[in-house]
Amino acid sequence: MSKKNDILLTNAKIVSMKENPQGYQISEPCNIYIQDGVIKTITADTSVQCSNQYDCGGKLVTPGFIDSHTHLIFAGSRAHEFEMRLNGIPYQEIAKNGGGILSTVRATRNASEDELVSLALPRLDGLIRSGVTTVEVKSGYGLTLDDEVKMLKAAKKLEESRRIRVSTTLLAAHTVPPEFQGQSDKYVDLICEEIIPYVSQEKLADSVDVFCESIGFNLAQTERVFLCAKENGLAIKGHTEQLSNLGGTALTAKLGGRSVDHIEYLDLDGVLELQKYGTVATLLPGAFYFLRESQLPPIELLRQHNIPIAVASDLNPGTSPFSDLTMIMNMGCTLFGLTPEETLRGVTNNAAKALGVNHSRGQLSEGFDADIAIWNVTHPAEFSYFQGESRLHARLVVGELEHVE
Amino acid sequence: MSKKNDILLTNAKIVSMKENPQGYQISEPCNIYIQDGVIKTITADTSVQCSNQYDCGGKLVTPGFIDSHTHLIFAGSRAHEFEMRLNGIPYQEIAKNGGGILSTVRATRNASEDELVSLALPRLDGLIRSGVTTVEVKSGYGLTLDDEVKMLKAAKKLEESRRIRVSTTLLAAHTVPPEFQGQSDKYVDLICEEIIPYVSQEKLADSVDVFCESIGFNLAQTERVFLCAKENGLAIKGHTEQLSNLGGTALTAKLGGRSVDHIEYLDLDGVLELQKYGTVATLLPGAFYFLRESQLPPIELLRQHNIPIAVASDLNPGTSPFSDLTMIMNMGCTLFGLTPEETLRGVTNNAAKALGVNHSRGQLSEGFDADIAIWNVTHPAEFSYFQGESRLHARLVVGELEHVE
Ligand SMILES: [Zn+2]
Ligand SMILES: [Zn+2]
Repeated sequence: MSKKNDILLTNAKIVSMKENPQGYQISEPCNIYIQDGVIKTITADTSVQCSNQYDCGGKLVTPGFIDSHTHLIFAGSRAHEFEMRLNGIPYQEIAKNGGGILSTVRATRNASEDELVSLALPRLDGLIRSGVTTVEVKSGYGLTLDDEVKMLKAAKKLEESRRIRVSTTLLAAHTVPPEFQGQSDKYVDLICEEIIPYVSQEKLADSVDVFCESIGFNLAQTERVFLCAKENGLAIKGHTEQLSNLGGTALTAKLGGRSVDHIEYLDLDGVLELQKYGTVATLLPGAFYFLRESQLPPIELLRQHNIPIAVASDLNPGTSPFSDLTMIMNMGCTLFGLTPEETLRGVTNNAAKALGVNHSRGQLSEGFDADIAIWNVTHPAEFSYFQGESRLHARLVVGELEHVE
Repeated sequence: MSKKNDILLTNAKIVSMKENPQGYQISEPCNIYIQDGVIKTITADTSVQCSNQYDCGGKLVTPGFIDSHTHLIFAGSRAHEFEMRLNGIPYQEIAKNGGGILSTVRATRNASEDELVSLALPRLDGLIRSGVTTVEVKSGYGLTLDDEVKMLKAAKKLEESRRIRVSTTLLAAHTVPPEFQGQSDKYVDLICEEIIPYVSQEKLADSVDVFCESIGFNLAQTERVFLCAKENGLAIKGHTEQLSNLGGTALTAKLGGRSVDHIEYLDLDGVLELQKYGTVATLLPGAFYFLRESQLPPIELLRQHNIPIAVASDLNPGTSPFSDLTMIMNMGCTLFGLTPEETLRGVTNNAAKALGVNHSRGQLSEGFDADIAIWNVTHPAEFSYFQGESRLHARLVVGELEHVE
């Protein structure tokens, strides 16, 4: 691996997002010295010198944002379906006409790996513009060994076209594919016997995810997939309690899952399981907004039990067509009543926990990776507030600087 | 005035947004010949030649979008207030601590004309990126003759920094300023005796607007301001029926207003007045979303009575902090149930009506101004659907071409 250039960021007002702070604790202007992609020192001592300096001009500097739940890789558009729905055409008829998630599966199966990459880049650029330096990307529109692998490889390949860090998640258990209709257990066999072992062996995914829901996979199937993932050395996380309370959250927590995502229907018992096992609760306000849901996630219970809350875009063509993470933070505040500090923690430190990378990302501390965003923003509450302006001034990914404006 | 260069756009798939079409009527690839800022011919005949050609590459081409209701010019941030509210601090206390609209008034009064321009530019850039070529800008945070004039001049000055067309609206009757507390009629005297005559004489505004509401100005005051505006040769429009049904809509319609804006609380009687007088109904879903309102505007009644519907951002620091017009279109669909075709008409032809410029803008037709957006979008429903990507490829404002990517 080539040695990276050292760089010294000067005159940075730091919002470090360290563990358990009191408020934002915006620093006085100080220096960040970065060596080989890692933050070596953060100091107010301006005598530190480096031939490669970058003056932050007193701007606000945060950890690069982490979007810990996306379905960024897909082909096809669901705009037509969106339009049909708004023209009053019933969902059944849309599905009969080839709409719904299976239309995305069809288009994704028909696309090549490189096509999937180029289709994803404009969406990724939207996320990058909103401050993202790490993005989680799930498979789940392939639903065959080859097509799931193609999706995961396409996701990882994004790193060749942009300065971005991709965390991949196998979501073969997203929906039952057409060729297994009425035989979901047989599809779970395929996942456990072929897809997970191959993906693990080829190191194509960091985690395995399951959509545990009446319209997805039941508890027993979810448990099978998770146990198989663990046997194969993969982390787990779940789409749970989005549309009903099935117990997927408790199951995921008990099995050591990194996060449970959506959880609008989670109750106190489920929250207590999260507390017991230290699981992250990932909130996805984009889907809540787009589906016009009314059941709010149990924010107060999460707060009372000190559950780490992540906030993510859930970027996907069917239920959250948004590639702008700060707009999602605004939805977290506006629709869920999160505070701007909670949403900021939800895309930094807590998002890092949801991906199991919180010992190297998600905060600006000595020894952490130099994934950094430099902003044209005077106060950190602004991230969740005004939307539509380009506010990112520059970014560093593993110490590599990129100017934005 | 200098003669503009002719330009020929080739290979354009046109969505013209002409009056009363059946659907989008996307054209076959054709040519648009522009002379001196005006569309001279639209033709499939590829033999037309011009030394200055631009190949649209088969991309979708629409009229430049028109944001017909914004409060783009202001100083100060309300992020702190947003954060206090989410931390559970009651509105009264926030207001007592200098929050609310009066904090924007204070900051705007303290800013110079040039400061107001530079503060507005990043917001304007957001609107431009979402396809806007004409933006309406209201005063209303100055509330003195000098400060209202300063705001209107700053708005118009945006045209010197960006290719954009600004329509200015005097909204001195936005709120009663602190120095007139308890004497709102005296403030209306000031508006009618000094501000409107001066603004009219100096040609600083196209229209006069009033916030007709229990927390704004009552019906009698609204009528006084409108009559004075008309005497001074200015068009009128109203912020009406946003929080209650006061009758401001009917009044505005009867007096020949161009549009009534918000109208969540409008009833059938009000809709019939709009029909009778041909007034545009301008919907502002950003404020509905941000304020977590539940009262929906009477969309079905508007449709049944063929009221032209415009959709606008209402960009402002207190209730709609969004400078992205396609995200607002998404809100129009998601929250109000508008169709993507209705939102597209709402930012083109119908928005032009709301500004009284529908004989020269808001559609791609021969004889109309060449305000044009060229898009990386395959279907017009996409505008209201996926958000966060930069989809604008190039734009023309009065025939002047600007590349975006
Ligand atoms: Zn998801
Ligand atoms: Zn307004």
